[in-house]
Amino acid sequence: MVNSPERPYAAVNLAHKLTLFSEHWSPKIVSTYNQNDIMVVKAQGAFNWHVHPDTDDFFLVIKGRLTILFRDGEVQLGAGDLYVVPKGVEHCPVADEEVHLLVIEQSGTPNTGDIATATEKVIL
Amino acid sequence: MVNSPERPYAAVNLAHKLTLFSEHWSPKIVSTYNQNDIMVVKAQGAFNWHVHPDTDDFFLVIKGRLTILFRDGEVQLGAGDLYVVPKGVEHCPVADEEVHLLVIEQSGTPNTGDIATATEKVIL
Repeated sequence: MVNSPERPYAAVNLAHKLTLFSEHWSPKIVSTYNQNDIMVVKAQGAFNWHVHPDTDDFFLVIKGRLTILFRDGEVQLGAGDLYVVPKGVEHCPVADEEVHLLVIEQSGTPNTGDIATATEKVIL
Repeated sequence: MVNSPERPYAAVNLAHKLTLFSEHWSPKIVSTYNQNDIMVVKAQGAFNWHVHPDTDDFFLVIKGRLTILFRDGEVQLGAGDLYVVPKGVEHCPVADEEVHLLVIEQSGTPNTGDIATATEKVIL
């Protein structure tokens, strides 16, 4: 395998990234796609009700189960399930037990929908 | 579980979607994120050398192994590994055995980099 020193061709292993932290609802940026952050997140319990006016919100469950509540329904996701919350749709993610997620949001989007309460997205 | 008749809250199960077709290098759209297509793809053998001038190219291996060749290196991906090929970077995906992928590209992007040779992306 030949690596360019300027741009190492390194895969991002999601399971490995998820061993590097334990805190919940604290997204870690593992790569970027156009102007979007690709993040791994560990979650347990209920997040807040929030909305992203300017971006869809991509969820893929890596391990565990996630419920996303909407004002008029819900979606239940297990490992290998994905769901995209359309922009402008109020939602509240909930996990009874710890769930591991791949999440994609536009770079700069506050995870809580509100910059005042947002968790900083750290590059992992 | 309450579903809105106007917008059913249905998870996309990637493993199930991958049971619905067998052809290689023929991306199937399973959801959209902003103006991007989220696709599952089965692949085996070598694709073509190509470049996407206007979009990064997101690969996540669901099952199997994928090598992405670059003119000056390569990256090898196993299940649970992701890699984003930056826009403008020539690449050639290769799989010795069948690999199952989640791929994200801007909607309207030809998968081969050239509209003349592109495979139509079908909604699954």
